[in-house]
Amino acid sequence: MTELAYLDGEITAIKQARVSVDDRAFLFGDGIYEVVRSYGGVFFGLEEHLARLARSAAAVEIRLPFSEAEFAALVRQLRKKSEIEDAMVYIQVSRGTEPRRHIFDLNLKPHVLIVVRHVPPIPERYWSDGITAITVPDIRWGMCYVKATSLLPNVLAGHRARQAGVDEAIFVRDDGTVTEAYASNVFLVRDGAVLTHPADNRILGGITRGFVLDLCPVLDIPCREVMFSREEMYTAEEVFLTNSVHEVRAVVEIDGRRIADGRPGPVTKRLIRAYKELTLRGGNRCCAK
Amino acid sequence: MTELAYLDGEITAIKQARVSVDDRAFLFGDGIYEVVRSYGGVFFGLEEHLARLARSAAAVEIRLPFSEAEFAALVRQLRKKSEIEDAMVYIQVSRGTEPRRHIFDLNLKPHVLIVVRHVPPIPERYWSDGITAITVPDIRWGMCYVKATSLLPNVLAGHRARQAGVDEAIFVRDDGTVTEAYASNVFLVRDGAVLTHPADNRILGGITRGFVLDLCPVLDIPCREVMFSREEMYTAEEVFLTNSVHEVRAVVEIDGRRIADGRPGPVTKRLIRAYKELTLRGGNRCCAK
Repeated sequence: MTELAYLDGEITAIKQARVSVDDRAFLFGDGIYEVVRSYGGVFFGLEEHLARLARSAAAVEIRLPFSEAEFAALVRQLRKKSEIEDAMVYIQVSRGTEPRRHIFDLNLKPHVLIVVRHVPPIPERYWSDGITAITVPDIRWGMCYVKATSLLPNVLAGHRARQAGVDEAIFVRDDGTVTEAYASNVFLVRDGAVLTHPADNRILGGITRGFVLDLCPVLDIPCREVMFSREEMYTAEEVFLTNSVHEVRAVVEIDGRRIADGRPGPVTKRLIRAYKELTLRGGNRCCAK
Repeated sequence: MTELAYLDGEITAIKQARVSVDDRAFLFGDGIYEVVRSYGGVFFGLEEHLARLARSAAAVEIRLPFSEAEFAALVRQLRKKSEIEDAMVYIQVSRGTEPRRHIFDLNLKPHVLIVVRHVPPIPERYWSDGITAITVPDIRWGMCYVKATSLLPNVLAGHRARQAGVDEAIFVRDDGTVTEAYASNVFLVRDGAVLTHPADNRILGGITRGFVLDLCPVLDIPCREVMFSREEMYTAEEVFLTNSVHEVRAVVEIDGRRIADGRPGPVTKRLIRAYKELTLRGGNRCCAK
């Protein structure tokens, strides 16, 4: 098994993949990306991730050099070549390379990077015991629905979580609205129903978030896309996060306050299990009954 | 004369300077930068730019590998080696290189890039006739005082200006407040006084902005750092922009509305001239009387 990089047609060890200092992702954070997992050699949600990549590209006017089917074939080939069964694949498209200026050449050739790595070790306690979080001001830009590489606010939020000795940082807007975590969507459970922020410009509509919203009716769990406040989150029956790498994780403490009894709740536990089962079936989202 | 890049100790042609695909500026926009000009081989405001680089670094916890004096020596040496008299120097520090994850290794070694180029040709009409602009919603993050490479909103604003057939895009917040342009500070003249947005978290406190605020009292022009609205900008006696590359430029049309008589006004013209004179004196800011 070997971790590998594909960069504009060349496949090399990751260390050997290098880009120009005039690459616009390097100079301007002018790129878009996706992270997708395989389970036992089978990708989960690859089509959904590539569809979102196409939406991000359209939103920032990057012209993707490949169709979604071509991207999928490339990603599958590279994973196979790596022989990594449980892979984390990073896909980035940068706008291209030219002497630095803000306005870009409309005929620029975008660069495609695909990196296949082992999924990093995830502590079992993330699912068994839940995780801890702080809230931080949501100071991000107004187009969070674009999965772009201009991620410094997210980086700094993660850093603040580490400084506070917790696992996660959850963004809260000036008006008290909870949006999402720095690389996960946030859900709460109230009166037995699952709630999460609507997929508007204030959050990145996660692929795992979508799978969870699809799973809820299958499991007879009511769910709604509505905004909620930090206070409503503190006093929720359960809080959990979703993302493609860490899947579904209970949040049992936020800003030093215990959520409910401080243990993963029953709805979260059902969703952790159902999502894991779904990934092992190769991501066919229509058969979770 | 040769355009050159310095990257972590190596000096090469710009095309040969390459970074890892795991560089955090490439993956996360996790870097800071400065752009500084030389005039006839003498830098203007280099110390001020390097002091701001240090402030940006502190704000995002990037540990600069060099003191300001060491940076200045490097920049001067590289410019000298390039033999470019009227140079535009780009300085970028990225947080470093490691396998991708949001939270960074605290012991990461930052990368220093310095690129010396010719100043791109600037149309004479920028100063003689003034420029045109549109306003765009200010959707940037909440730490605009940091000169960071997560610049996608600025890139998109520049693109929108081009699409609209104008030179510049000026950011306006939801409440109608004018903040700055995508790579320049915005000033207006009202009752003969120069006004510009306070240097808080909503704007990047430009080095040229600072020189202009210093020049005003020398020229007996009243000036104040106060917020103003889009309507106040439309009806101002004059509007102008400042940045290190384009210096002082009159804005004569915004959103299709002519500003005053549609010609650069007397205060702007005095500042264009005084700033040019200052740069030719090598940037000694205490001798402009």
